[in-house]
Amino acid sequence: MRIAELSRRSGTSIPSIKYYVREGLLPAGTATGRNQAEYGEGHLFRLRLIRALIDVGGLTVAAAREVLGAVDAPALPPHSLLGAAHSSLNRPRRRDSDDPSWRAARDEVVSMLRRRGWYVEEDCADFDHAADAVAALRALGQEDLLDCLETYADAAELVAARELDIVIARGESARMVEGVVTGTILGEAVLNALRRLAQQDASARRLVAAEDLPGAAI
Amino acid sequence: MRIAELSRRSGTSIPSIKYYVREGLLPAGTATGRNQAEYGEGHLFRLRLIRALIDVGGLTVAAAREVLGAVDAPALPPHSLLGAAHSSLNRPRRRDSDDPSWRAARDEVVSMLRRRGWYVEEDCADFDHAADAVAALRALGQEDLLDCLETYADAAELVAARELDIVIARGESARMVEGVVTGTILGEAVLNALRRLAQQDASARRLVAAEDLPGAAI
Repeated sequence: MRIAELSRRSGTSIPSIKYYVREGLLPAGTATGRNQAEYGEGHLFRLRLIRALIDVGGLTVAAAREVLGAVDAPALPPHSLLGAAHSSLNRPRRRDSDDPSWRAARDEVVSMLRRRGWYVEEDCADFDHAADAVAALRALGQEDLLDCLETYADAAELVAARELDIVIARGESARMVEGVVTGTILGEAVLNALRRLAQQDASARRLVAAEDLPGAAI
Repeated sequence: MRIAELSRRSGTSIPSIKYYVREGLLPAGTATGRNQAEYGEGHLFRLRLIRALIDVGGLTVAAAREVLGAVDAPALPPHSLLGAAHSSLNRPRRRDSDDPSWRAARDEVVSMLRRRGWYVEEDCADFDHAADAVAALRALGQEDLLDCLETYADAAELVAARELDIVIARGESARMVEGVVTGTILGEAVLNALRRLAQQDASARRLVAAEDLPGAAI
């Protein structure tokens, strides 16, 4: 197909397509004449992955190029490939590790996952993000809410097991990376919305008299 | 205590304290002389709640005043009080409901929760946020990831049940509201970080050979 059709079918503007080719994210088309090139289904497929990385995952072009490099490396074992895609999604670390109460919060999360036997890297930024919130709950006098920690870990295990089964069943590495990126970001949005709805439901079940309940259900 | 001590103990600047008094969020102290007032433990307690609403919950001063009004209304039943606090945390709705694929995504989520018998309000913005992500997953060709929906709902039920038990056990309405606000926002951050760590673990368990695993554990 010509670039105009590739643009239409992928929903990506022609200047963006040219930019991705120039930046090495998308292979060039096959030249069919002066200023003309032919693109295939592989280009369409790759464009979808690029947009998942950049538009959904929020990756910079440089970070996307790195993930695509991992996708294209035939020798890379799948766990490393998914790990590269996954860690490219990490938000910047915010906290200063000098604060002793923050360090204690981080150690608490690390210890919990060690007890649970999770295979995770200890220097991972997700520990920092968890520590930010745990330290904030303590500083605000909400220690009792930390009794939820194990339940959060149970829920996370439940969800991650299902997600990884689906992504790995795809088999093909580019599709697996696409699944990790879109699933991590968009799945988070779904889970957070459902948690808030479940809180509404849990509040109604505990605080509304049984005879008043049926009217409240959707 | 004098305003300087209240400022020190609450970690809130004197101008902010005066601003909250002027805006009706914090009761004025008891005047003990020209330009002097005495504040009690109740003021300290209320300041902590104000900061939870504004700094953690991201509420505007007007929204915080509304939630505090609900806290101070002695006749309000607890479910309505928690609902008021909870819905004040809602992010703005983004999507245009005219898009048929977005409507279908929203209906899908509503139907799922109806089947599960959740007591939630159908016009709730959380349905819109879930629909945003579900519609995006479909548009990106990631339909298989939607097989996670029921698992997300299971995880949300698990977490919300524990959270509401803890918050309701507090008994006192201002403390319950504080728990809903900080728990909803900061608990979300903890859960999301643990989900990403659990994905790392689930990937290792599925894709790394058993004899290589022990070295990977934290």
